[in-house]
Amino acid sequence: MKPVGVKISSYGLALPDEIESAEQLSEKIGRSSDWIKRRSGVHNRHISNISMPELAANAARGALGDGPKPDLIINASGVAYQVLPDTSVFIQQELGFEGIPSYSIHATCLSFIVALQNAASLIQTGVYNRILIVSADLGSRGRNFNEPESAALLGDGAAAVILEASDTSSILAYHFKTWPSGAKHTEVRGGGTRLHPQNPATTHADNLFSMNGPAVFKMARKLGGPMIQELIDKAGLEKGEIDLVVPHQASGFGVQVYTRYGFPEEKIVNIVAEQGNCVSASIPMALISALKAGRLHRGDKVMLIGTGAGLSIGGIILNW
Amino acid sequence: MKPVGVKISSYGLALPDEIESAEQLSEKIGRSSDWIKRRSGVHNRHISNISMPELAANAARGALGDGPKPDLIINASGVAYQVLPDTSVFIQQELGFEGIPSYSIHATCLSFIVALQNAASLIQTGVYNRILIVSADLGSRGRNFNEPESAALLGDGAAAVILEASDTSSILAYHFKTWPSGAKHTEVRGGGTRLHPQNPATTHADNLFSMNGPAVFKMARKLGGPMIQELIDKAGLEKGEIDLVVPHQASGFGVQVYTRYGFPEEKIVNIVAEQGNCVSASIPMALISALKAGRLHRGDKVMLIGTGAGLSIGGIILNW
Repeated sequence: MKPVGVKISSYGLALPDEIESAEQLSEKIGRSSDWIKRRSGVHNRHISNISMPELAANAARGALGDGPKPDLIINASGVAYQVLPDTSVFIQQELGFEGIPSYSIHATCLSFIVALQNAASLIQTGVYNRILIVSADLGSRGRNFNEPESAALLGDGAAAVILEASDTSSILAYHFKTWPSGAKHTEVRGGGTRLHPQNPATTHADNLFSMNGPAVFKMARKLGGPMIQELIDKAGLEKGEIDLVVPHQASGFGVQVYTRYGFPEEKIVNIVAEQGNCVSASIPMALISALKAGRLHRGDKVMLIGTGAGLSIGGIILNW
Repeated sequence: MKPVGVKISSYGLALPDEIESAEQLSEKIGRSSDWIKRRSGVHNRHISNISMPELAANAARGALGDGPKPDLIINASGVAYQVLPDTSVFIQQELGFEGIPSYSIHATCLSFIVALQNAASLIQTGVYNRILIVSADLGSRGRNFNEPESAALLGDGAAAVILEASDTSSILAYHFKTWPSGAKHTEVRGGGTRLHPQNPATTHADNLFSMNGPAVFKMARKLGGPMIQELIDKAGLEKGEIDLVVPHQASGFGVQVYTRYGFPEEKIVNIVAEQGNCVSASIPMALISALKAGRLHRGDKVMLIGTGAGLSIGGIILNW
């Protein structure tokens, strides 16, 4: 694959005002705040009292700034606002636009990475020039308080970027694989044709998030190392040349694990303690937090990487 | 946009065995079979008693034949199998594969057209070489029998294609636009974070398909003509040079309407009477039915076109 000349030219972040601490969550899930912090790594999470398209639009407005309208809007989120029409329509509606092409790319927690590569290919082939990618999830609304391990993880947030052609910035490598043998490890079983809401067989729990953390980690540990090496090889780099690692904020452990793959802790962006696992929004939220902290400069090599429900493993290396 | 050298190299179709006639539907929705046929244009529709991923995989196996595995699977369907993981995972699982990248592109009834352009750009930029695109929908499961107009339309079906690079075939033009002012005209309001299944405010009807046909037609009539002209202009063609029109099978009227845009009836693929509106699967199902009938030959100019929930209008012209 030849490098795609694209850059993230602007970005926006939306964090709900309301914060729920481990102490506040403690009584809901019947575990101590210490247990929550130790097991999930999440001390606080933001909870949205506005809709997903409203939160998404808040992030998108940050990315759009005073610039021209995008010529494509991609919703790259984990969970839909409603079944039909597609969620991108409601984000466009919140932005007050009409007539802009919009659709969704859905690869659960890795939707942002997959959307980035799709958008880059569309730009390189001249189909679009200025693409708005928005990832927003209200994971808090899908928490199952009877499953403390996963309920402790989820938070709400949104992030958006503008992708444009560039002579200097590019995608150096992209890698994404899906392993259906892990499909049962991270699920919301309801909401579709499998267990329709009106199906009497559908339980309350079917409509909530469920995760078998140890099973996910077992698969991720086996597949993650070779996949990272393949990604870095594709980019023609050595591990030490990666300036910044932006992992999916799956959990405290799910971020820390990248030290085991040979990346020093100071190169790994970690926002999980204060923002939790925001599903698809975690990767761009972590990227933007690093940008705001001045940790990323043009010319740096940054690796976005993670595992997602599927089970999928994916990553992208950008010459920033 | 420069022409993308890609071709649909093989294809597969899956139609459930069970057929429901207008006569059989008549008692469910309290309308005569004549009313159903006259208002919807649908005489029969197929009803699936297997799951969406199973039906999708049946179509996919037809497309894959004895050829090599695809290097990407795109689920381009209207409605998910479940909320998480993404539906493409379950299609891959049914196919017995592991480790193939898979995700969904969702643009409701136009998902196939949008996926085709995304896949073409990914091939042209060297990211993938052999992409399986699958569109499958079980619209019958979302019918609201208290809304006879829309309940009369929906049927079940699946279609799949393999897209590969080509020196001779190409995409001549692609056009897709979304108008959120039409979002309320075609909806399934439930199933996401807006009206969660466990939200007491969510009604039975919220989880079923609802369409304001006259409102959709009014928008489509205003926007459709200019959009078709723009698409044909982009391709550098005259209307008379289009050899075959493959419309979304929205309804009898929704297919017939293309004669008003200046296309002779014999160039318009019409399968709506026997298969109904199969949401995202309708366009590739109609394309494949034309191929099987020997109506499309290499070098022909074929236009896939339609309106979808959103409201979106989109089309693609292929140099077959």
